Amino acid sequence: MSGYFDSAASMPIFPRALLNTLTKINHGNPSSAHLPGRQAKKIINNTRLQIADYIGGDPDQIYFTSGATEAANILIQGYISYLINNSSFRNEIIVSSIEHPAVFQTAYAMQSKGFVIREISCNEWGEINCNEIERLVNEKTAMVCIMAVNNETGAIQPVNEIARQIKKIDSDVFVVCDAVQQFAKLDVKPELQVVDALFMSGHKIGADKGIGCFYLSNRFPILPLMYGGVQEQSYRPGTENVYGIALLGEALMESLRNHDSTIGKVRQLARHLISRLDFLQVNYVRLVPDEKSSPYILSLAFPGTSSASMMRDLTTSGFYISQGSACSSHSMAPSRILSAMRLPNEIITSAIRISFSYENTLEEVDLLADHLALYCKVEIEI
Amino acid sequence: MSGYFDSAASMPIFPRALLNTLTKINHGNPSSAHLPGRQAKKIINNTRLQIADYIGGDPDQIYFTSGATEAANILIQGYISYLINNSSFRNEIIVSSIEHPAVFQTAYAMQSKGFVIREISCNEWGEINCNEIERLVNEKTAMVCIMAVNNETGAIQPVNEIARQIKKIDSDVFVVCDAVQQFAKLDVKPELQVVDALFMSGHKIGADKGIGCFYLSNRFPILPLMYGGVQEQSYRPGTENVYGIALLGEALMESLRNHDSTIGKVRQLARHLISRLDFLQVNYVRLVPDEKSSPYILSLAFPGTSSASMMRDLTTSGFYISQGSACSSHSMAPSRILSAMRLPNEIITSAIRISFSYENTLEEVDLLADHLALYCKVEIEI
Repeated sequence: MSGYFDSAASMPIFPRALLNTLTKINHGNPSSAHLPGRQAKKIINNTRLQIADYIGGDPDQIYFTSGATEAANILIQGYISYLINNSSFRNEIIVSSIEHPAVFQTAYAMQSKGFVIREISCNEWGEINCNEIERLVNEKTAMVCIMAVNNETGAIQPVNEIARQIKKIDSDVFVVCDAVQQFAKLDVKPELQVVDALFMSGHKIGADKGIGCFYLSNRFPILPLMYGGVQEQSYRPGTENVYGIALLGEALMESLRNHDSTIGKVRQLARHLISRLDFLQVNYVRLVPDEKSSPYILSLAFPGTSSASMMRDLTTSGFYISQGSACSSHSMAPSRILSAMRLPNEIITSAIRISFSYENTLEEVDLLADHLALYCKVEIEI
Repeated sequence: MSGYFDSAASMPIFPRALLNTLTKINHGNPSSAHLPGRQAKKIINNTRLQIADYIGGDPDQIYFTSGATEAANILIQGYISYLINNSSFRNEIIVSSIEHPAVFQTAYAMQSKGFVIREISCNEWGEINCNEIERLVNEKTAMVCIMAVNNETGAIQPVNEIARQIKKIDSDVFVVCDAVQQFAKLDVKPELQVVDALFMSGHKIGADKGIGCFYLSNRFPILPLMYGGVQEQSYRPGTENVYGIALLGEALMESLRNHDSTIGKVRQLARHLISRLDFLQVNYVRLVPDEKSSPYILSLAFPGTSSASMMRDLTTSGFYISQGSACSSHSMAPSRILSAMRLPNEIITSAIRISFSYENTLEEVDLLADHLALYCKVEIEI
């Protein structure tokens, strides 16, 4: 009895993508001028083309990083450094209150450089409030960071609507989108007419941990965080993770090959879990309505229980879910995201995240539902 | 007819290390509190122990990065940021003139923050001049960066002697060592009594590209370059490259298992190449004497030829060597390292780097020597 329901933290690697990668990579350094070096470079540029093709951008505007955290840091710190270096009068950063720590903490770190952070709030189901944009954007706004899908709740965000509003007010505001939980999974793609930069992470789409990339429009220059090489057009020096990049391309292709059927499958799994919980008369609260949520992520609260002890119990029984995001899983502080949604305390402290991938089965979901039902019954009766 | 003689740019992965890694890694996010997460974390900490054990440090002082370039940036930028934040009066950085660009360019980038860069020169065979330390270190010296083995020439550096001299003058000077070409290869280890930080790169020791680590003594605090997670004690946030870290540990174990025999083997290969060239009466110059050089790297010049065209010819014939380091292999500028050695122009423009690994054979070396002899004969006669 077991099931891995934490693909939003890290998705299992596509086996075929891994096999293809292992047969493809060689030992050359992509900076070497000889054949093995050029072959390694070609693998990198092949993935670059695949990503550009998927997002609808130019391959020259795709930059590989060690993951989404690094990408967020390069984009935010890099643009702020550029503004400071050019004595820009813009000194405000707008972030949504539900951004991932990689964006949220990096934006707040810019306070030490004289930047003011303004937060866009979200509504009760975790959707960023579009109607605050007009009030928040002004002539001092340097950049706006909005995510495509929230990692803790699965709430799909009105990225393009917000980006369009911003660009209508001032086309020189730099709009950055955390596409980590949308990339290769959902059709609601950031539109590159209004979104100037986006980033993703390999291990959320069935590639490996330690790789990611960002797209950056030529309109917005950044200064690099690091020095010492001309890799990735000097935006990200250091020998490239060829294995990770090759696997990223393979995983993207695998995702796109089965795109619609996987969405159908995970939606069925999520709905099946919900109907099982209903059938078993479990007292749960779904934090984001079905039509507002990524089908890959199900955010549920079980009033009367504690998510921390529920998680321990599930782990013991071989069900791997998450209490908030993986990055904060060892923290005992209440989720910043659920707090931003102004949910009652008993919801916040009893919320868990169940996230799906191509690997999960209906049988696993049945077992999970049964286990949740049993757990809630015992826990609440005590 | 072919041979890969560019392991100093990137060494072939140890097949057994790769197989062990693939059977060991799982899909958990090391930040997750559940079993797959804890298993992933354990893999990371296992490699941490192996590295600490090898260098003779504390596992808590080992930090994983995406490679040596990132490690160098974190250490240099991180310490300088710390000093600035604490209004230190120290504003000088000493680097050797033969440092890798990851160190050299990062140090020079600190000029924009008000730091003065002082270079230690090297002698004619590329060894850093110890006798300049006393003159260069003063009460304003913040840090000194010296490499263990030069990546272009293979020249072994008197790291410990220099570090001891520095510490004798002022124990609060931060001594950082680029151990990339020494780590797991040579016995001349940086001594942690006098060297405060060192870093290495996975793909130079038979692990994969995209991973590296640094050791940092508790005595010297640094500010992180990036924000958004508590991984690696917040010095390096972002989901860890578990595959890369696991493989790093496996490759280190594999290196140490065959440490002396591999040194013996590559030394034999290098000496065999030299005696073959002598036998074939090739006019060559060895840039670093045998006893001063890492046996893994052979730096040779062929007066009267051009290293660029020699490299093209060798590549066409399936011999993969390097003209300087991989990072500058597409550059036409004369090598900064060889220029620092004040070598005559005809030596600088005809120098190539031949580097070995466990994979090379005497037969390959014979073929390479024959090809070099033929090339020099034809090229010089024309």
